Amino acid sequence: MCEANVYLEIAGHEELFMESVDMIHPETDGRLLIVDIFGDQKIIQGKIKHISLLNHKILLEKTEIG
Amino acid sequence: MCEANVYLEIAGHEELFMESVDMIHPETDGRLLIVDIFGDQKIIQGKIKHISLLNHKILLEKTEIG
Repeated sequence: MCEANVYLEIAGHEELFMESVDMIHPETDGRLLIVDIFGDQKIIQGKIKHISLLNHKILLEKTEIG
Repeated sequence: MCEANVYLEIAGHEELFMESVDMIHPETDGRLLIVDIFGDQKIIQGKIKHISLLNHKILLEKTEIG
């Protein structure tokens, strides 16, 4: 399986935000819809900072609303 | 291997932009640095529109410079 773990960069370190992610869909309002392989969803105001597929890792950072 | 193919949405259809991509790194200037599993790189002014890891597919769209 080729899912990835999504991490959130907070104050210089990386926190696991969601495991086994299949899909990320940036919304037009600056939020990211994230869906794991089980169909569970999370939404976060943020942007993608780095994707490394061979490492199964996607790094996000939070952004300001508006 | 868990690389993905990167497609570019142009005029409503999807064109293959780069195969076997390992890494995507959004730059602060709005460009995306894309690196495949062989280390080859491409840079495009654009943003990520959709990621589907189980489908090995990442969809981009071009954005305006500046």
